[in-house]
Amino acid sequence: MRPTKVSRRELLGAIGLAAGTSVVSGCGGEVQSQTPTPTDASAAWQYVSLVPGTVAAEAYRLMPEGGCMYAAFTSILTAWGKASGQSVSSFPVHMMKYGEGGIGGWGTVCGALNGGAAIIGLFEKDRKRRGAIIAELFSWYESTRLPSYLPNRDSAKIPATAAESVLCHVSVGRWCETSGNKVLSKEMNERCRRLTADVAAKTVELLNKSLDHAVTLAPDNSTPRAEEAPKSFGKMKCITCHEVDNP
Amino acid sequence: MRPTKVSRRELLGAIGLAAGTSVVSGCGGEVQSQTPTPTDASAAWQYVSLVPGTVAAEAYRLMPEGGCMYAAFTSILTAWGKASGQSVSSFPVHMMKYGEGGIGGWGTVCGALNGGAAIIGLFEKDRKRRGAIIAELFSWYESTRLPSYLPNRDSAKIPATAAESVLCHVSVGRWCETSGNKVLSKEMNERCRRLTADVAAKTVELLNKSLDHAVTLAPDNSTPRAEEAPKSFGKMKCITCHEVDNP
Repeated sequence: MRPTKVSRRELLGAIGLAAGTSVVSGCGGEVQSQTPTPTDASAAWQYVSLVPGTVAAEAYRLMPEGGCMYAAFTSILTAWGKASGQSVSSFPVHMMKYGEGGIGGWGTVCGALNGGAAIIGLFEKDRKRRGAIIAELFSWYESTRLPSYLPNRDSAKIPATAAESVLCHVSVGRWCETSGNKVLSKEMNERCRRLTADVAAKTVELLNKSLDHAVTLAPDNSTPRAEEAPKSFGKMKCITCHEVDNP
Repeated sequence: MRPTKVSRRELLGAIGLAAGTSVVSGCGGEVQSQTPTPTDASAAWQYVSLVPGTVAAEAYRLMPEGGCMYAAFTSILTAWGKASGQSVSSFPVHMMKYGEGGIGGWGTVCGALNGGAAIIGLFEKDRKRRGAIIAELFSWYESTRLPSYLPNRDSAKIPATAAESVLCHVSVGRWCETSGNKVLSKEMNERCRRLTADVAAKTVELLNKSLDHAVTLAPDNSTPRAEEAPKSFGKMKCITCHEVDNP
């Protein structure tokens, strides 16, 4: 059995990384390559300010068509196409259906976040800024009581919880436990649908903020000092899943 | 402190879902919508058989340029473009840089898997088949000792571990612990680079298999029976992160 305890030192190592907003590359640092990018269409993708409320409504509408990642991504892409005058009709948005239920039902990263992060990747080409916006989005998701979106002015509110995790199965499990609803119930589906609207709106809010250069860029902590090299890494909240030893 | 123990009943509920290869939508079931898809370019994306070894080498080459998700995705897209005669030069592959280090360094889903799953989403439009291919890829990743890719015929082998998880921070942490290498070290980077080559090759192997209708489609277990409704869901291995009670 894999132990779930982590030492305080390990946790502090992870939190030390978590405190920064720079991108810590766990899977291979991005460095200047000697070989050119085979395809570089990035210049065409210039973000323009969008209206969070409009995007939220569209994400809510799109959810039944292709799930959470698809709805979050497509709602923003479509709004951008209209606002910028660019045609997005050839964009293979169907691709994003893979992200539902934490990728094909695996319960990993919340699909709405995966879709929001993909949009951030599409528009923010600077690695440090991209990491900073993703960090703001993910931190907000962990700590904010969701959902808050109301489909109509007279819609009934539904219970809201702070997920304490960016992982789908934790986020969903916590909401079901707190609200007394069953996993895979209609109530859960409505919760995820509204939450997807919230995530789409927040992504746009952060990209608007970035457009005004108002996103905080913390110092680059991606290279830990040798004496503090952590045994683990990542920016997720550790204590949601791991107990902590007090040595 | 959030408890990490799950009961046997909860675990069995989760495993019951895990046993199926159908997509369990944690975040909103995909149903027939009354409204048309705003953009539907899916018909243009028809998979053709690709050579896993060629894709692996390209993924390995691309890794330093944009990280694990970018490398896995772009290597396959580029190979498909060549094999199918379709131009992919306008595809905004730069978008996929967001997935590195489990999305912007957050340590969630392995970026190579996120890239592989995105490619599966691009080419497999049937929800059940898409879920089945993703499940084969993710299960293989959990249980296979990786990396196995060798950049050159005379390259030295490096330690290989079964990640027992599709999450970046668990996969990386386990490899570093077993191999005695530090997190964010050059050795870890080389491990992730080779692993990305392995994941890209496996994705292509599974898509080739799907082209021959050789992917196993298990019965749809997405609607659990009421008396067995689990408190959690998802297809990840439970026992890697959770202790199990024996009631």
